[in-house]
This record gives sequence, C-alpha cells and structure tokens, in this order.
Amino acid sequence: LTGESIRVPLGDRSYDVEVGRGLLKEWGARLHACGARGRVALVTSTPVDELHGETARRSIREAGLDPLALSVPDGEAAKTPAVAAELHERLLDAGAERGTWVLALGGGTVGDVAGYAAATFMRGVPFAPAPTTLLAQVDASVGGKTGVNLPRGKNLVGAFHQPELVLVDLATLDTLPGRQLAAGWAEVAKAALIADAELFRYLESSVDAVVERRPEAVSRLVASAIRIKAEVVGEDERDLNGRRALLNFGHTVGHALEGAAGYGTLLHGEAVAIGMSVASRIACELGFLSPEDETRSRSVLERLGLPVRLPAVSVDAVLERLKHDKKVREGRVRFVLTGPIGVASLHADVPHSLVRDALASLTSAGDGMTPSHGEPHP
Amino acid sequence: LTGESIRVPLGDRSYDVEVGRGLLKEWGARLHACGARGRVALVTSTPVDELHGETARRSIREAGLDPLALSVPDGEAAKTPAVAAELHERLLDAGAERGTWVLALGGGTVGDVAGYAAATFMRGVPFAPAPTTLLAQVDASVGGKTGVNLPRGKNLVGAFHQPELVLVDLATLDTLPGRQLAAGWAEVAKAALIADAELFRYLESSVDAVVERRPEAVSRLVASAIRIKAEVVGEDERDLNGRRALLNFGHTVGHALEGAAGYGTLLHGEAVAIGMSVASRIACELGFLSPEDETRSRSVLERLGLPVRLPAVSVDAVLERLKHDKKVREGRVRFVLTGPIGVASLHADVPHSLVRDALASLTSAGDGMTPSHGEPHP
Repeated sequence: LTGESIRVPLGDRSYDVEVGRGLLKEWGARLHACGARGRVALVTSTPVDELHGETARRSIREAGLDPLALSVPDGEAAKTPAVAAELHERLLDAGAERGTWVLALGGGTVGDVAGYAAATFMRGVPFAPAPTTLLAQVDASVGGKTGVNLPRGKNLVGAFHQPELVLVDLATLDTLPGRQLAAGWAEVAKAALIADAELFRYLESSVDAVVERRPEAVSRLVASAIRIKAEVVGEDERDLNGRRALLNFGHTVGHALEGAAGYGTLLHGEAVAIGMSVASRIACELGFLSPEDETRSRSVLERLGLPVRLPAVSVDAVLERLKHDKKVREGRVRFVLTGPIGVASLHADVPHSLVRDALASLTSAGDGMTPSHGEPHP
Repeated sequence: LTGESIRVPLGDRSYDVEVGRGLLKEWGARLHACGARGRVALVTSTPVDELHGETARRSIREAGLDPLALSVPDGEAAKTPAVAAELHERLLDAGAERGTWVLALGGGTVGDVAGYAAATFMRGVPFAPAPTTLLAQVDASVGGKTGVNLPRGKNLVGAFHQPELVLVDLATLDTLPGRQLAAGWAEVAKAALIADAELFRYLESSVDAVVERRPEAVSRLVASAIRIKAEVVGEDERDLNGRRALLNFGHTVGHALEGAAGYGTLLHGEAVAIGMSVASRIACELGFLSPEDETRSRSVLERLGLPVRLPAVSVDAVLERLKHDKKVREGRVRFVLTGPIGVASLHADVPHSLVRDALASLTSAGDGMTPSHGEPHP
C-alpha cells in the first residue's frame, strides 16, 4: 500500500495522519501499533457501516482487537448531547475502561460526536477516527476539535481532544456523492487560499482532474491540505494565539448561513464556500485582495461545483446569527480575510455595514461580482 | 494580607494556587491580573452564597468585572449532566463568549460541575475556582479534574481542564462544619502518607491544634498538601504515567464505599479515610507497611475524627463496585499502597481474596487492628 504519514506536532500529544488508498484494510494493525488493545468501541452510522463497516471490522479483528459496534444517527442528527450521553451509556454497558479506545468511522458528524464522547468519558479515553468524507479527512479529523450542537448553535458544547491516530483512506471517497465531495474541496481551497499560493495555483490548474476524481490530483491535494492544517494546529493547538483562527476563513459567515438556512439545507463546505466568497468580497473592499484575486478565489469554488452566493435567507437573519458566533470576542465579530491569495489575517474591526453590504451584494439576486470600491462604510 | 503562591507547573497551562486568610476580598483584583475582563459567570450554591457571595461579588465588581450569578444545587445533586447543561444554557442566555471566565465559589461539587461546564462550553473557557471547603482546597481544585456523576458511578463523565487561578481563602474554613473539615483533613493525611513522612510527623504532633482550627497549623498543612498535589500534577497532568495515580490512595475502596453506602451517606473524605485504612491493612498484609506504621496511619485518621471502618454495607456490594472503578485496567483493580509512611506505589496484582479479607476485617463488627500475618492468599 502506498501512503504517507503526516505528523501533527503537539509534543507528547503528537500523532500521525496516515493518508493513502486502501488503508482501511490496515486500520487494525495500525491501531495496535499505536497501543490499542482488547475491546475497542467502533462508532459509525448505518450508511457508512454498509459501505465500509465490514472492511473495518475485519481489519480490527485481524489485529487481535475486539470491535464493539456503536451506531449513531446519520448526519447532524448525531451531533447532540443526547447521542453523546447514549454513547457513554453503551460504553458503560460494554464494561469500557479508561484505556478503552473509541474509533470513529464516518464523516465529520460521526467523528465530532464520537470524539466528544471519547473526550468526556472518564475524563478522556483514546480516540482514533477514520474519516470517510473529504471534508472530515482534510479538516474535522485533524486538530482535536470535538463537539455537539445545541438548538442555539453548532459546536456550542465540545472539547479539545487530540486523537491517537487518524486514518485517511482515499478509496472511501470513491463512493462519496458529488455534492459532498465538492463540499470537501471547499476546505482544500480554503487551506490553499489562507496559506499556500502555489497549492492554489495547482488547484486552479487541476480542477478538471479533481472533478473527475483522478487519484493523483486527489492524493496530492488532500495530503497538502492536511499538511497545512497539521502545521497550523501544531502552532496553536487550542485556538489561542490567532494562528488557528485563520482556519476559520469563510467559517464566520458560513456557520451563520448554515443556521439561518436551517441545519441540513447547506452542507458545511457549501456554507464555507459562500462564506469565503463573502470574505473575499470584504477583503477586496478593504483593499487587501485585488479584484483579480477576488475573482480567482470565487471562480475556483464555482468550478469545483460550489455555491458562492447566499441561498434564500434574509441578510438580517445571517447578521443576527453572527452575533452568537463562538469567535465573537467582547462583542466584536472577528473575520479572517485573505490578501494576497495564500496569506490570511484576522480582523476584529470590520465595519458592520461592510459585512451587510457584502452579504447583500452576494444574495442570489444580487451581483456580487461588481465591486463597489470607494463607498463609505461608517 | 499574608499568603503564599504555589505554582502548578504545567508549561503554558501553569497556574498559581494562592493560599491565605481573607483572600476572597482580593479575588476580583487577582482575576483581573490573570486576564479576566468584563462579564464573568460566578457559579455557587445557596448556602455558600449566603456566607461568602457578597464578599466575592463586591471584590469582583471593585476590579471592574461584572459578575453573573449562577446557582447550582447544594452537594452531589449539583454534579449531574443536567446541571452542566443548564449552566451552558444560562451562559448562552447571558451572551457568554469563548473568552468569558467561569468562576466557582464553593466546595468540590460546585467546582467539579462548574469546571466541567467551563471545560465543555465552546470547547473550553477560562475557569477559576475559589474552593470553600478544606477538601476542595487541598484536593479537588488543583489539577484540572472536572466532571459529573452518572447513576452508575461518580465522575464517569468529565474532562481535564486546568484552571487559570485557584484562590484558597483559609477564612472560609471558619464556618465549615466539623464533619466536613475532618473529611478535608483526610486528604491532607493522604498527601503526607503517600509523599512526605515529615509532614506526617508534623500532622501527628499537631492533631490537637488542627482540631482546634489554629491558623498556623491549618495554614502550614493546607499549603503543604497543595504543594504535594501541585508537584504530582506537574509530573503527570493526565494521570497517565502512574505518578498521579498515587493520589488515589484510599480512593479505590473509598469510591466503592461511597456508592455502596448510597451517595451522600459518607462524605468523600470519610470514604477515603476508610479506604486508606483498608489499603494500609492490605499493605501490612503484603509486608510493605510495618504493623506500627499501619497503626500510626489509622490512628491519625481516628484522632482527626474520621471513620476507619466500613459502615453498614456488605463487603460483596463494595467488591462489586470496585469492578466498575475508572482505575480498572484490563479488568484488574489497581491499588495504591503505602510503605513505609511517605512512600506510595501502585499495585495491579493485589489478590482479590486479600481485598475481601481486608474489607471484612474492617467491618464495624470486625477487629481490623489485629494483624493476621502469614495467612495464605491464593
């Protein structure tokens, strides 16, 4: 099996993200090599279980481990405090101990709730996700963010809990619906836009290969995005010094949009694509990003099949949601802006009116591509 | 104000435990010096609020902070997932952000649930407890263990979340009922028994002063116990290398007893005192602890007003509970044993029959003071 290991450098909590095609067949052996023993809890959802459960369980059993299957609902319905509590109960039923590993096989929601359950079970048990969506592979599974949603917002309850090992089997992307795949590419584009101009040029030049799921392009882009994320997380594990906050490019508006549109309407990556489109608009207005680079940023997203304009939601509903964003500090919304492509910075002083105008210009009816330089923003 | 600062050495998560009489009047200023700003959530229970709430709030306000009072039930009733969830809701109601500090004013249960709520709100917000019971001052408030109970056991759900500052106002002990105070001295005796023979001799020589609450003895013992805990936590933050596990001396049987007797029947410190008595019995049987030191260990506890024999519970019920202890690894109960006084070690191989005999010999009817050296324990 070909593949590569990407180290997330976090001192005594460092771990590897292993990336390659067909790695799921080796999951058990690699878990065992990292210290897993005896009974392990395997959290998954029914659709993922049908596709990959048997491969995973066989690999786990072949390594001498004893997988206990725990099923969670599909999609965001899994990310609730009640599901995490149910996982705890089932872990107790199974006699789980402080050394019992929790594995997650599935997309970001499976990983988030399983990771949160692992983080809070007996003050934390070992966690190892094998993400099966592109979004989870390049983003959610690296960095230790776990959590569940409350009715008032996403990820309002959660914990940092670094995994022991992340296994990225690129073959799981073969069965991923195109819409979900595109949503994952949004995070890859994000990584390039905030940190790697060269990777962005490669993405621009290989959009066709990406859309056709050609293994070489997929592999290079996924590994590069993970490498960027690993580096940022290594510098700012707990999102404290501003470095990790740059990964939130597109997420401030993205999260607000997901909520305003009704969770489940937009995929996370789609909401982030729109959020990046809005942030690029703002960055251009403020003079950080050239009009050409604003266009390039948006164009790649569109060519990847992603939305770059607001769905049918009111601008006011989005603005109201922004107020409750976790990234709010002392009442001010913080925006990540790019400029030039490959460089990102954090801004706490974006005028409210500019945010409103950018949102309004990118409603489905609006013409977001017409810059409005020079307008006053009191 | 006199007082001293004890550093808990945890790299970029290091913090100070400030110990002295009357420190609560300076809480606000010290929180501000550590970075607290604006609105802070002050979690407390009604009885503690009546005694110390006004002093705390005035101090917080004088430092320019805005305390939001959040009340939790008194005692173990506070340590439930539902109370933690309610704290989250109230934090959201109040517009809490990722930088909002959560303060805890009260005993261990207030600190545990407030700390857990802080650990899991938006993946962790700053936490600063001012423990008002001796038990919480010398034990629970240092080291970052937070959690809530499930019907099946204590602290089954929780997280490690180091505080920013721990404020120990020894004057809060003046109003503490004698039984609760004694329960706290159990943890001080524990610290001496596992790590500091000289401190144990001082404790033996000053039991009368301790029982009379003489400030000098109280201050020296509390600070010494915190120093021991800080050192152990600094070496083994997450309870991984066995060092921190030594702090569980008396806790293995203690936790089982608390549950078997019905939560609330025994105070935690009382259960730990009995647990230490049982562990000393086992250590003597195994030849680690001399019969004289077994007697000294138990005698200090009794003179402090602590129980050293099992209450009216069946030995089988205690043994059954032991199986579900968090400290179980691969099915084996791990015991911390002392020998000689001031030195502790971890044992995973204590024969089941020996545990049973030690428990049986220390039932209220039994005669635990008669050693039974030489009996076989297959």
